[in-house]
Amino acid sequence: MHPRDVAGPVIGPVAIVGVGLMGGSLGLALAERAGVGEIRGADPDAGALALARDRGAITEIASSAEEAADGASMVFLAAPVPQLAELARSVLRASGPSCVVSDLGSVKSAVLRSLDARERERFIGGHPVAGGERAGVVFARADLFDGATWFLTPGVEARPELFERLHAIVGAIGARPVAIDPEVHDRLMALVSHLPHVLAGALVNQAGSASPGGREALRSAGPSFADLTRVAGANPPLWTDILLANRDALLDAIEGYLHEVDEFTAALREGDAGRLAEAMERAARGRERLIEEDAAAAEPWRVVVGVPNRPGVISEIATALGHAHINLEDLRVRPGAAEERGELDLVVDGEDAAREAASLVERRGYPASTAPAD
Amino acid sequence: MHPRDVAGPVIGPVAIVGVGLMGGSLGLALAERAGVGEIRGADPDAGALALARDRGAITEIASSAEEAADGASMVFLAAPVPQLAELARSVLRASGPSCVVSDLGSVKSAVLRSLDARERERFIGGHPVAGGERAGVVFARADLFDGATWFLTPGVEARPELFERLHAIVGAIGARPVAIDPEVHDRLMALVSHLPHVLAGALVNQAGSASPGGREALRSAGPSFADLTRVAGANPPLWTDILLANRDALLDAIEGYLHEVDEFTAALREGDAGRLAEAMERAARGRERLIEEDAAAAEPWRVVVGVPNRPGVISEIATALGHAHINLEDLRVRPGAAEERGELDLVVDGEDAAREAASLVERRGYPASTAPAD
Repeated sequence: MHPRDVAGPVIGPVAIVGVGLMGGSLGLALAERAGVGEIRGADPDAGALALARDRGAITEIASSAEEAADGASMVFLAAPVPQLAELARSVLRASGPSCVVSDLGSVKSAVLRSLDARERERFIGGHPVAGGERAGVVFARADLFDGATWFLTPGVEARPELFERLHAIVGAIGARPVAIDPEVHDRLMALVSHLPHVLAGALVNQAGSASPGGREALRSAGPSFADLTRVAGANPPLWTDILLANRDALLDAIEGYLHEVDEFTAALREGDAGRLAEAMERAARGRERLIEEDAAAAEPWRVVVGVPNRPGVISEIATALGHAHINLEDLRVRPGAAEERGELDLVVDGEDAAREAASLVERRGYPASTAPAD
Repeated sequence: MHPRDVAGPVIGPVAIVGVGLMGGSLGLALAERAGVGEIRGADPDAGALALARDRGAITEIASSAEEAADGASMVFLAAPVPQLAELARSVLRASGPSCVVSDLGSVKSAVLRSLDARERERFIGGHPVAGGERAGVVFARADLFDGATWFLTPGVEARPELFERLHAIVGAIGARPVAIDPEVHDRLMALVSHLPHVLAGALVNQAGSASPGGREALRSAGPSFADLTRVAGANPPLWTDILLANRDALLDAIEGYLHEVDEFTAALREGDAGRLAEAMERAARGRERLIEEDAAAAEPWRVVVGVPNRPGVISEIATALGHAHINLEDLRVRPGAAEERGELDLVVDGEDAAREAASLVERRGYPASTAPAD
């Protein structure tokens, strides 16, 4: 990764709605890392607000989300998932025409769907893949998002300069912004996060009710059982909301998963060692790929793309690169000589990724050039 | 835990059949911790034998399992699971009438069932819950079994003094011997080890084949996905053998597991937040219990039980205590004044466990007394 020093131009007031572990950590990171001077907090819990101010996570206490949003340059909704759609609408109404509204929810499609096209110009969903064991602003810390993937899910209506501002600030606080289509995001999270929570929960519930092995199971559990059940029953109210909010994608993921379990079950039932070994080998290869991709790293390369100045282009390109597995380390929009055209300045990991990115955008009709970033 | 200094009386030659990671580590632990002077190794791989001797895991190289067993006081079979039954029979034939034969396999019922009642007098299965990422004697280490549960699965025919000798040596090398019924052991392992391997494998296979989220899934996988897939595809040939050897118990475990997953699926499908939250809460409580039981520790207490001198009594008592979740830190048999009676000297964790153990054996008709162990 390459360093980022500032979040572009100086940022005006930022509002955080919900000052728990996530909102509080965001506030600390904005103050300490991105140099944001005014951070307004809103929360139904007056004690949390006071503590957030004492800890430096916010600088002002607002009496409502709307008051916090009024005149802000950016609003982050760090409230429970079921409240996000309503909060987004009301904060969009209360904020000015150049204010970008985002959130920190783990599920993205539903909120976006609940907004109209006009609202989606300024609402760009976000999801930091980070968290802590214990909730509350008392456990907030500025480094919670360090190196964490922070998904951004712009709709096609999202205004480029607002997406750019959001992307820059997420990078400035130390996270890795990754643009992704909201539906793809939700299917992905169903698979790598929501499904694991269901599977772990089911495994603990089975061990608890199993007879006669139940108590021994809990006692003498080996390392594989401990690994598989670590997330079991984590924060039930929070996770109930998340799982329900991503219900359709999660049900699909469970169905696909049961199909894979069936492959093992069939091989076992038939006593077919070859078929069982093949399923295990496939898992071994998949796991190796996972480790390799994790370890891969490269030098930053720059891709400059000529783009027309119309809505949807930035999110189209960012999302296409996300689908192709190309992570954007940095993204900036530069106005061009003529008002109707501009330049999109991207930084990616390594020459291969840069060339792939350039060829991808060229196939979509945008001219592109590549060079080492430094 | 309380310290053990020696493995009872001086131990004669010990044979290890299969000097890989497990057999090699056992040899190192026997030499360094239990003061065993003669350790014979047998293995089809001559290179592994030479390396095992160089490393001090064995002192003599035998040309076959039978040669190693001839005149040994104890034989450990550390070979692949499918070979154990045949090896056990042939080693029992080659060894003397006071030699105890054990193994290190992860599945216990099948081998025991393949032996006749006479053979089960001297064969007592074992299963150390330990291992390493990489196979081979080159990675063997004397502390591999430190603090690890080492299941012992005597049949009712097992001779008490042989069980005692095996129990003592397992404790002497730093592991925690736990007597358990072989069928219960296999159902337990199906649940806490074999099922997790299947579930992890299925999850990685699903992520690899999922479209369009596949590649992103492998890249941006969160911590819960990493936890759940850590054991995926570990050593496919080894695990194929293990899973097939425990096929019936594993199929039962999968069925029970799918039933628990159904509970989540039904709640999701109905959008029933209460039912979903209840399933999550149950998992949260189960997980808490698991952590609590792990943390519990107590002072050693002694339980002295009067027992008739006939086969099956020791394993009956040890297994009954195992079912009642009472771990035996130590176990010795002492001859009584009359030849037909003896004393079984047990050490357990804490006064509560001691009283529960005493009451359990008394209900089975054996007199018992309890006292602090030191």
